[in-house]
Amino acid sequence: DYKSLDQIKIGVCGGDGIGPAITSQAQRILEYLLRDEIKAGKVAFHVIEGLTIERRAAENAAIPPAVLDEIKKCHVILKGPTTTPRKGDPWPNVESANVAMRKELDLFANVRPVRIPEQGIDWTFYRENTEGAYAVGSKGVHVTEDLGVDFTIATTQGTERIIRAAFEFAKANGKTRVTAVTKANIIKTTDGKFLDIFREIAKEYPDITADDWYIDIMTAKLVDEKRRKDFQVVVLPNLYGDIITDEAAEFQGGVGTAGSANIGKKYAMFEAIHGSAPRMVQEGRDIYADPSSMIRAGAMLLAHIGYNKEADKLYRALDICTVTEKKIVTTGRSNGATGAEFADYVMETIEKLK
Amino acid sequence: DYKSLDQIKIGVCGGDGIGPAITSQAQRILEYLLRDEIKAGKVAFHVIEGLTIERRAAENAAIPPAVLDEIKKCHVILKGPTTTPRKGDPWPNVESANVAMRKELDLFANVRPVRIPEQGIDWTFYRENTEGAYAVGSKGVHVTEDLGVDFTIATTQGTERIIRAAFEFAKANGKTRVTAVTKANIIKTTDGKFLDIFREIAKEYPDITADDWYIDIMTAKLVDEKRRKDFQVVVLPNLYGDIITDEAAEFQGGVGTAGSANIGKKYAMFEAIHGSAPRMVQEGRDIYADPSSMIRAGAMLLAHIGYNKEADKLYRALDICTVTEKKIVTTGRSNGATGAEFADYVMETIEKLK
Ligand SMILES: CC(C)[C@H](C(=O)O)[C@@H](O)C(=O)O
Ligand SMILES: CC(C)[C@H](C(=O)O)[C@@H](O)C(=O)O
Repeated sequence: DYKSLDQIKIGVCGGDGIGPAITSQAQRILEYLLRDEIKAGKVAFHVIEGLTIERRAAENAAIPPAVLDEIKKCHVILKGPTTTPRKGDPWPNVESANVAMRKELDLFANVRPVRIPEQGIDWTFYRENTEGAYAVGSKGVHVTEDLGVDFTIATTQGTERIIRAAFEFAKANGKTRVTAVTKANIIKTTDGKFLDIFREIAKEYPDITADDWYIDIMTAKLVDEKRRKDFQVVVLPNLYGDIITDEAAEFQGGVGTAGSANIGKKYAMFEAIHGSAPRMVQEGRDIYADPSSMIRAGAMLLAHIGYNKEADKLYRALDICTVTEKKIVTTGRSNGATGAEFADYVMETIEKLK
Repeated sequence: DYKSLDQIKIGVCGGDGIGPAITSQAQRILEYLLRDEIKAGKVAFHVIEGLTIERRAAENAAIPPAVLDEIKKCHVILKGPTTTPRKGDPWPNVESANVAMRKELDLFANVRPVRIPEQGIDWTFYRENTEGAYAVGSKGVHVTEDLGVDFTIATTQGTERIIRAAFEFAKANGKTRVTAVTKANIIKTTDGKFLDIFREIAKEYPDITADDWYIDIMTAKLVDEKRRKDFQVVVLPNLYGDIITDEAAEFQGGVGTAGSANIGKKYAMFEAIHGSAPRMVQEGRDIYADPSSMIRAGAMLLAHIGYNKEADKLYRALDICTVTEKKIVTTGRSNGATGAEFADYVMETIEKLK
């Protein structure tokens, strides 16, 4: 329980690319909503510099050790997008910073909500966040020059905890259905394990309907406007969670609108699901980037640390600002609002609520 | 070149579930279009029985050896859906028959077109069909009771041949863009190899734009109605091809509408991309199943063996019957047409063409 702490320390890592621009707007809104607790010393924000591709490349580390130390002094982290080197980029092959953070802080549950109220869509994806194809991602084997092998893993404990988290979330939030997504017909050992454990744990929740689909047909089901709203909580191995949450977010308005919570036993990290868009910075357009993904991540952070009233206000304001009213709209270009103008709009909307 | 053969032998495996019902309708249409060559002995159809889950379970084989022998006597195969046992099913854990056939006949290219003329969509997916997560699919390792490992593989030769096939198809069909889809930022060895080889081979086709995306964001891009029509040829490792072609087919009207060509050096097999829907058979509804996926597979077969005029007629008739005119529609239930009535409608439509 965070509220029993003397002070809740919120770390803010701006990341790079458009990260600093959009993260600082989310931070402004959180500071505004928590202004009284900040004054009272109950909450403190710590801006953590250095999670940039330049520094990571220079230190040849997914997360520079000094930065990781700072992060570990906080209770929760608001993290902006970070650049993951692509093949052909000038950077050394450092691992993705968010993947590294998920591992270092053991953030096993990646919770990604997608809501489209006007279509009756209210999905919560529980993506396993430390195993699957990601666990040994950078340690595949070139058996010969002509044969490469990658590994996918699943442990009993790692699988149980994500599936249990999904069912517990469903139970606590009055959800009546939990759906597992695998490719257990082909990837028999790890996905088979996932499906077996899902079916075992489902028995402990007799009031919740448990069903499962293969990942291929699931991507089609999400397109089906008549049926898709019936999904509620969806639990999936790491890679399928990665894939399907981008598709799902697109129905909500794009990956730029979706926030993501990475939850572990000790730490929690909140981020956007999209990348750092370095081209926007090169073209001087980062101030026009849409900060709503980071603001949504901020709302998830508020709820996670127990500020439910504030979280709720922020969600309601975001619905007004991005769906029903849309008075101020970012386009990513100078013909739209700046991120700061959008954040002002959100705060004014909060002010008018109730 | 098939036409130089004394006789082109077309094997027809009905499969099980709704397979026999829909496959026989596709066969009727092919026999109608090829009636003159059948009379002249240039083309012969061979119905191959026994690719059913009962027989496969009894022989504990993905494909009963005698059935495989029959198949290997043919040049091309029209294959209905076959049942793949799911966890908890009464059958032994026999491998998927189509996956086995892809391996046994070395059908390395899974070609899946998705066309929505009225939206300007004309996609051709080149799915690698023998490697990736499928190669050792059933041979993962339970390292301990608590740790399962699955393997993904990529060979240089296997990767080169699918990528080259995609570029050659593009070149032969006046396409100007080939897109690779990987998750090379995480699955670095095998997907990294795929991406490296893609970029190498792309240099040999300077007139074709080559780009690449990660699979997560690609599933989102396909949702974007403004931009998605710009994709033309898409080449992907096995698992991503499996996933994204179901999503893509849904935009065309569902997996029930999509045909798939599995092409190797020696053999070629044409099938639907959907499953065998055993429940429809249990409920006596198989005669109402939509045969258009198998008919589309049949059209691909015709084009493959060089009967381009006939293939073209069939495609045009399918567009009329499923998009522009839709006089006779199956619903999967007795309130819709039977598969036979739909096939009659297609043949009448062909008759009226020109
Ligand atoms: C950037 C990338 C490594 C990351 C992932 O694959 O998990 C991203 O796509 C996400 O979904 O958070
Ligand atoms: C049935 C299944 C094994 C198969 C696959 O995964 O390849 C199917 O989904 C397909 O796309 O042909």
